[in-house]
Amino acid sequence: MNCKHIAIVGLGLIGGSLLKALQGFEGAVFHGIDRDADVVRRACAEGLLAAEPQGEADILQLADVTIVCLPPVAAIDFMNRSVFKKDALVTDVCGVKQAIYAGLTNREIDFIGGHPMAGKETSGYAASDGNLFQNASYLITPDENSRPEHVAFLKDMAAYIGCRETVLTTPADHDRMIAYTSQLMHVVAVSLCDNPQLDDAKRFSAGSLRDCTRVARLDSGLWSQLFMLNKQALTTCVEEFENSLDRFKGYLASDDESGLRDFLEEATRRKLRFLA
Amino acid sequence: MNCKHIAIVGLGLIGGSLLKALQGFEGAVFHGIDRDADVVRRACAEGLLAAEPQGEADILQLADVTIVCLPPVAAIDFMNRSVFKKDALVTDVCGVKQAIYAGLTNREIDFIGGHPMAGKETSGYAASDGNLFQNASYLITPDENSRPEHVAFLKDMAAYIGCRETVLTTPADHDRMIAYTSQLMHVVAVSLCDNPQLDDAKRFSAGSLRDCTRVARLDSGLWSQLFMLNKQALTTCVEEFENSLDRFKGYLASDDESGLRDFLEEATRRKLRFLA
Repeated sequence: MNCKHIAIVGLGLIGGSLLKALQGFEGAVFHGIDRDADVVRRACAEGLLAAEPQGEADILQLADVTIVCLPPVAAIDFMNRSVFKKDALVTDVCGVKQAIYAGLTNREIDFIGGHPMAGKETSGYAASDGNLFQNASYLITPDENSRPEHVAFLKDMAAYIGCRETVLTTPADHDRMIAYTSQLMHVVAVSLCDNPQLDDAKRFSAGSLRDCTRVARLDSGLWSQLFMLNKQALTTCVEEFENSLDRFKGYLASDDESGLRDFLEEATRRKLRFLA
Repeated sequence: MNCKHIAIVGLGLIGGSLLKALQGFEGAVFHGIDRDADVVRRACAEGLLAAEPQGEADILQLADVTIVCLPPVAAIDFMNRSVFKKDALVTDVCGVKQAIYAGLTNREIDFIGGHPMAGKETSGYAASDGNLFQNASYLITPDENSRPEHVAFLKDMAAYIGCRETVLTTPADHDRMIAYTSQLMHVVAVSLCDNPQLDDAKRFSAGSLRDCTRVARLDSGLWSQLFMLNKQALTTCVEEFENSLDRFKGYLASDDESGLRDFLEEATRRKLRFLA
């Protein structure tokens, strides 16, 4: 696929990091779109964007690939109201996929959902980092209408920015897996912090508290959207997790130390298989 | 306090790490007791213990300070059946404190409970590390009968091995705080792994899953004891945590995105206060 121009829409943590990580890729020229003109100016001054800033419509007509790096609702809105270059690849980076496909009404668009599984506790262009995707997993959700060259482009791009692999999956499988591997972990971190004891915990704390709550510092606007848009799979996940906690409490209540030991060993074995 | 001889009972992860971290402290000679004679031989060969190994009874009559680094039930048993040097300080490193005091029937013993808040996912002497306590919190539970020079010794010792602070507290407060800051985090990590989805999660996972489940790889014999011995405070903690999860599910069920956002922001604020 001949890709001369790449547009990145939304130069926040993910968009900014992609812009930095993609420098040099395919010899393409980069164009940035952001509601904050200062951010575009800054990226331009840093030499990361084409020297001559253009209007949004012109950029989208020029871009062979447009990567929409906005939160889900804004991403859907942007894609529905925009006119993209014919045959261009349009992709996103949202942490949910079914809701994006369900919201897309623009039929003139070659869209493939994408989700680079990387992030940090701070947001915005200032926090962006060209190394953010090192060793990450890049999930994409092509279907039978997707052009093979578009899929190949995403795989090449993921490899270029340092991802360890590109995973092809369906929007439904993506959302079900992500409810557990990512969303539940954020729910846990936040819910662990929903306790006044945390205010006195510092002198009594070690690494486990730090690690289990690391991602509690999140972008509330983005994550409340992501949670709401995957509420069914996520609610199931939280309920399964509560069942496990109840199982644990049951061993305590019945003084079943050997049952408890088995429970702990089973978890350790599964953890070790995961690490293997 | 004149401390010429220090005995360490149990050369596992914590005992071995203490032995390594304490080298040079007060110019003392170190003595090791372990049911595995090979471990004592190895520490001796490494130059960490007195060159001439002695019998357990002799060591305990020689030691001005004995640090019992055994799991709770074994620690209680050891302290009740041993005869220590007169006026010697005896301390432990267990993660629960009320159960230790409740189990002690040996009245000829100057015991002060201790809990250096450090650990790792592997156990045994082979995993021990002289840097394990760097920046850790050392909790101690002296009472009105404790000798000031014993308390001072523990503070000096904690500083020497690299702890950031020594916290004086009561066994009840210790157990209540630890139920939240440490035990709950381990329960969460284990319960997150009590899910067959973990077996397929690798390709869909990022840092949050890794961090939230880090401590799931635990010593099941030790931790089932620690959990059982603090079951009341821990059960309360797990229930409070489940209430927070229920609160989260409630926002999803009622489509209350603004309530959800407030919930997330409150947690983030508390996390930032904790980090400050």
